[in-house]
Amino acid sequence: MPPYPSSFLKLVDELARLPGVGTKTAQRLAFHLLKGDPLRAKNLAQALQNLHQTTHSCRQCFNLAEAELCTLCADSDRDTSLLCVVEEPQDVSALERTGEFKGLYHLLLGSISPMNGIGPDDLKVKELLARLDPGSKVKEVILATNADVEGEATALYLARLLKPLGLKVTRLASGLPMGGDLEYSDEVTLARALQGRREV
Amino acid sequence: MPPYPSSFLKLVDELARLPGVGTKTAQRLAFHLLKGDPLRAKNLAQALQNLHQTTHSCRQCFNLAEAELCTLCADSDRDTSLLCVVEEPQDVSALERTGEFKGLYHLLLGSISPMNGIGPDDLKVKELLARLDPGSKVKEVILATNADVEGEATALYLARLLKPLGLKVTRLASGLPMGGDLEYSDEVTLARALQGRREV
Repeated sequence: MPPYPSSFLKLVDELARLPGVGTKTAQRLAFHLLKGDPLRAKNLAQALQNLHQTTHSCRQCFNLAEAELCTLCADSDRDTSLLCVVEEPQDVSALERTGEFKGLYHLLLGSISPMNGIGPDDLKVKELLARLDPGSKVKEVILATNADVEGEATALYLARLLKPLGLKVTRLASGLPMGGDLEYSDEVTLARALQGRREV
Repeated sequence: MPPYPSSFLKLVDELARLPGVGTKTAQRLAFHLLKGDPLRAKNLAQALQNLHQTTHSCRQCFNLAEAELCTLCADSDRDTSLLCVVEEPQDVSALERTGEFKGLYHLLLGSISPMNGIGPDDLKVKELLARLDPGSKVKEVILATNADVEGEATALYLARLLKPLGLKVTRLASGLPMGGDLEYSDEVTLARALQGRREV
């Protein structure tokens, strides 16, 4: 047993449960917190205490929210005719950073993954369909799930489901990332880039 | 501003202040905590709250302690004739892991570093001399400061200070690390290994 007090070891133990943090890193972080201003540790403790109490799911889009609706759903300036379907809250953040999208979001909170036993019923698909009822203002649904196997399968599933509703259903473009090199890009990406080529 | 609740952003902000944790990692950790069992976040918060309240410095050796004396100083089975001088609490842990040392420790809580304005008076040197008064049982002092410039300077300074007291003063061996390759070792290490060669 390391020659440290149990309260210190307890903190190391709790930190080491975080993803990507091993015992060594946890120890380094704990020493850093111990050496630093006690207020810093207190603030972090407070933030952790508040996390689950004040962070909820948006009633409409399932993004993180403090109120019933998230800031985006509550914003009357957003374009309600555009609905972007993503997997996780992180994806909303990524898309918002582009500044290109002014519509609303719908979070599935996952992707179809038979390997992990996750089917459409485990995702917020029913809720998506409810938002697209005939009375809704949505004209276009952008399927912005990840470009991996699960994300593609989910997009395909949703496309089949939504097309009959008479909506415009689009998918994010696949191709070379900006700054990408033809020589080093994989076949699938390059094939997608070819298929999706546009007139200049 | 990312489209997240302020309580979530506050946690990301606090996590991102930890060394080696950027905003992206902090966000990943915060999402992990949010998705997981609320008890996990509570436990971590609790451990952080307790840290400064229950972790003190050992009155004798300045290692981390919950009581007045640390577990090592309070252990009557340790060899009081051997005193190992190290820089930080982490070094005690490293030496204890070897299982080779059964004596007591003294922590300097740093090393002499003129570049950073740290002199002998900023370290626990006075306290070390007090422990080595003529009435003490210490026969050998092992200087186990780091093998870097600051650690070497500190060891040299202490050696000059302690030699006149009639104590045996030793320094950790320098040389090839186990599994080390002659070809890839630096000149200084190799020179030290040569100087410190032993008959087999």
